[in-house]
Amino acid sequence: MKKRPVFGIILAGGSGTRFWPLSRERFPKQFLRIIGEGTLLQQTFERLSRKIPANRILIVTNDIQAESIKFQLRQWKGDLGRNVLIEPEGKNTAAAIGLAALEVIKREPEAVMVVVPADHVVKATTRFLRAIQFASELARQGFLVTFGIHPSRPETGYGYIQPQKRKKVLEKGGLVGYPVARFVEKPNLNRAKRYCRSGNYFWNSGIFVWKASTILSELQVHQPKISRCLMELQPMQGTMQYPEALQRVYKQLPVISIDHAVMEHSARATVVPVDIGWSDVGSWRSLDEVAPKDKAGNVLAGNILDLDSRNSVLFADRRVVATIGLENMVVVDTSDATLVCSKDRAQDVKAIVQILKQQGAPEHLEHLTVQRPWGKYTVLEEGPGYKVKRIEVDPGKRLSLQLHRQRSEHWVVIQGKARVTRGEEKYDLPTGFSTGIPKETPHRLENPGQVPLEIIEIQNGPYLGEDDIVRFQDDFSRIRPGA
Amino acid sequence: MKKRPVFGIILAGGSGTRFWPLSRERFPKQFLRIIGEGTLLQQTFERLSRKIPANRILIVTNDIQAESIKFQLRQWKGDLGRNVLIEPEGKNTAAAIGLAALEVIKREPEAVMVVVPADHVVKATTRFLRAIQFASELARQGFLVTFGIHPSRPETGYGYIQPQKRKKVLEKGGLVGYPVARFVEKPNLNRAKRYCRSGNYFWNSGIFVWKASTILSELQVHQPKISRCLMELQPMQGTMQYPEALQRVYKQLPVISIDHAVMEHSARATVVPVDIGWSDVGSWRSLDEVAPKDKAGNVLAGNILDLDSRNSVLFADRRVVATIGLENMVVVDTSDATLVCSKDRAQDVKAIVQILKQQGAPEHLEHLTVQRPWGKYTVLEEGPGYKVKRIEVDPGKRLSLQLHRQRSEHWVVIQGKARVTRGEEKYDLPTGFSTGIPKETPHRLENPGQVPLEIIEIQNGPYLGEDDIVRFQDDFSRIRPGA
Repeated sequence: MKKRPVFGIILAGGSGTRFWPLSRERFPKQFLRIIGEGTLLQQTFERLSRKIPANRILIVTNDIQAESIKFQLRQWKGDLGRNVLIEPEGKNTAAAIGLAALEVIKREPEAVMVVVPADHVVKATTRFLRAIQFASELARQGFLVTFGIHPSRPETGYGYIQPQKRKKVLEKGGLVGYPVARFVEKPNLNRAKRYCRSGNYFWNSGIFVWKASTILSELQVHQPKISRCLMELQPMQGTMQYPEALQRVYKQLPVISIDHAVMEHSARATVVPVDIGWSDVGSWRSLDEVAPKDKAGNVLAGNILDLDSRNSVLFADRRVVATIGLENMVVVDTSDATLVCSKDRAQDVKAIVQILKQQGAPEHLEHLTVQRPWGKYTVLEEGPGYKVKRIEVDPGKRLSLQLHRQRSEHWVVIQGKARVTRGEEKYDLPTGFSTGIPKETPHRLENPGQVPLEIIEIQNGPYLGEDDIVRFQDDFSRIRPGA
Repeated sequence: MKKRPVFGIILAGGSGTRFWPLSRERFPKQFLRIIGEGTLLQQTFERLSRKIPANRILIVTNDIQAESIKFQLRQWKGDLGRNVLIEPEGKNTAAAIGLAALEVIKREPEAVMVVVPADHVVKATTRFLRAIQFASELARQGFLVTFGIHPSRPETGYGYIQPQKRKKVLEKGGLVGYPVARFVEKPNLNRAKRYCRSGNYFWNSGIFVWKASTILSELQVHQPKISRCLMELQPMQGTMQYPEALQRVYKQLPVISIDHAVMEHSARATVVPVDIGWSDVGSWRSLDEVAPKDKAGNVLAGNILDLDSRNSVLFADRRVVATIGLENMVVVDTSDATLVCSKDRAQDVKAIVQILKQQGAPEHLEHLTVQRPWGKYTVLEEGPGYKVKRIEVDPGKRLSLQLHRQRSEHWVVIQGKARVTRGEEKYDLPTGFSTGIPKETPHRLENPGQVPLEIIEIQNGPYLGEDDIVRFQDDFSRIRPGA
């Protein structure tokens, strides 16, 4: 039997409400460095890449996050741009997995897919990879494998899986696959306690292993509508009509998770209990499980000045945050927003984000510092008729050749050397020098040097949105607004 | 008998540790708007000015705060600059009161002085003024009057006064003056409870009424050293030698409160129990006593987004602070620092300030926004080799004609019109225009218009301290550094 290749599928469409104010709608949890080296997305990619070549790891995400994802994956060699699959809109996991399966099957019809969320923590990488290998074997036999986690507490926020313990599908190297007896929705506390005690239930980790062809045929059986949509899309792959077809098809796709869509109905559903140091880090409180603590049980980061606090999660950045005598509290400070809550109310952060969103407050949407393919910028202040930014351009990089209809800009170089294009002119500005760009004037900012270029930009005008931009040329093929 | 005039003496030398991060070493509690209209200093001045002409209200303070005090008193007509007495260094209240008494006696030998701290709350102004009138009568008879407050809780942070209740010195309109039996130092909790129950003890409010001549002669009796110092100073008043003599004399003055120095020893000490809605607002916790609360018992200010908190003090400014489910907590947020503590640890804020001071952290010293006689500035960001400020110049005002040895500056006008002097040139910049000031170039910024002028200033250079300044001319007679 020919060995079938394995693909990794990273689901990266999170919305960034549960780790506010560190996560934002445009900067969800997968982009956070809350534990270990790198962001959760980078850790997830790195983990898979130990067994799966990087060019076979696909990331399913949305338009808004695609650029940041490519940016985060630039440390892996090769053009991974092709690996980022962009959904026109979020339709939950069934659609995302279906889309990924189409792409996998086009590349390798018999391939196995390992589906993982982008923003979970898995501390025992070796055991995770061994479980992947075991599950792949089940997948090749036509099973739909899900990883089950031994519950460590009566959690009411997860779904549970009950296996048919008497019927082992496969057993090897300490791992066992059981047929699924049933999936259980998030239980109440009493039921969760019972599940915990019984030892006969596992948390549903959201990690799946199956053949692309199996999941597509199971979708056909249990979700004919989704299947029809995907089949409509299939012949368009690689054609000019694809983007338009994708938009049209996604509008029709139902919003449903793969658990509800397939796993709960399929006779092929198999659970493999694993012990891989897993956490979905679903709230600030859950950092407790995975982050290192000081002697008093605190998780600490950044410029925290603490006296006598205990069992608290205290996250600061550069601003001073003084904490005295806190117990079981969460304090998270960022440049433009601060959260203070008791640990057992950490899940209500969602409600705060909802209120901010209704108010149209920018603090739910993005951070003051925004990554760009050429570097980054930080909004220092915004007021009526003006905005002040610090802009950092990486060595050798340049922004698009652009103009603004409604604002003029002034640039003062505070570090490095700037190469400026302004209308027909082109000139260099060393540190301490400045220039002005009138509105309606084509211009470009470039870092010709070996060190990062930093400038302060002052914008003046009646409208200062990022979408007041006309791009003439761009090294990063961006046609959407937002330089 | 000729009616003797009354002087108000405001002691305004506070250090700003207890209300950090809202108060700072250079911006102590007296400058805060934490309750009612205006700052505590303005409220104190306004209260006295209902009975005492503004030109007879003296403020004793230090060099660092003098400018801000004059700024805060500019709403009162007339030149109050003469009324601000500047101590070369803080030596506690005996020295400050002695200095004020010298000034009063020079102006009116028989005058009565009403001594009040600048940063206390007195809610019942009418009753306070009536008590002043009553106490002045006692003062004219040669008594040293202190106001006693009925204790509302067994406070261990105050001194207590026991009156000789059987010997009334004066009784009139519901007010009584008793000879003081004894002053009691801050008691422990058990003793404080006993004092509270007995009804025979009063809190020492720190408000005093006496003739200037009486306190000076009592100082002569009980504190000969202080008295000698003051007598040395007296003949210098109004001469060129005064500033130098003041410095010399202050070096020799002992650090002692007027309570320890005189009140505890004098047979003239008299206590007048008053009910004037007094609080020394000695900590964030004490805001509870004086500030308005919502239904859940919270004191709220600024951009707080709260869910279900109770009995908490939640102070924010413009940044979003989200609070969920807090109980008996204090959260105070400012541009550069945040405090989170339980209410019963509020007094430990002092320890935080001490640590910041030892670390040389700027957050103990001043705010990012600093008031100046011509307007104000806010530091938006500071990094290696650069600083970004927003500068606001009031209509018709101008900064000093100055130069900097080590930094160049760029100015971009974001509101109003700037008149710029640069070397020999003088020109106007409308909104959206910019100019550069090379180092070593004399320059001046002026607002010739009717609306506030706002500019963004970017400084470049190896050293960016406020003390890199050479002033050639200044409308506010400043020769010290700090534009």
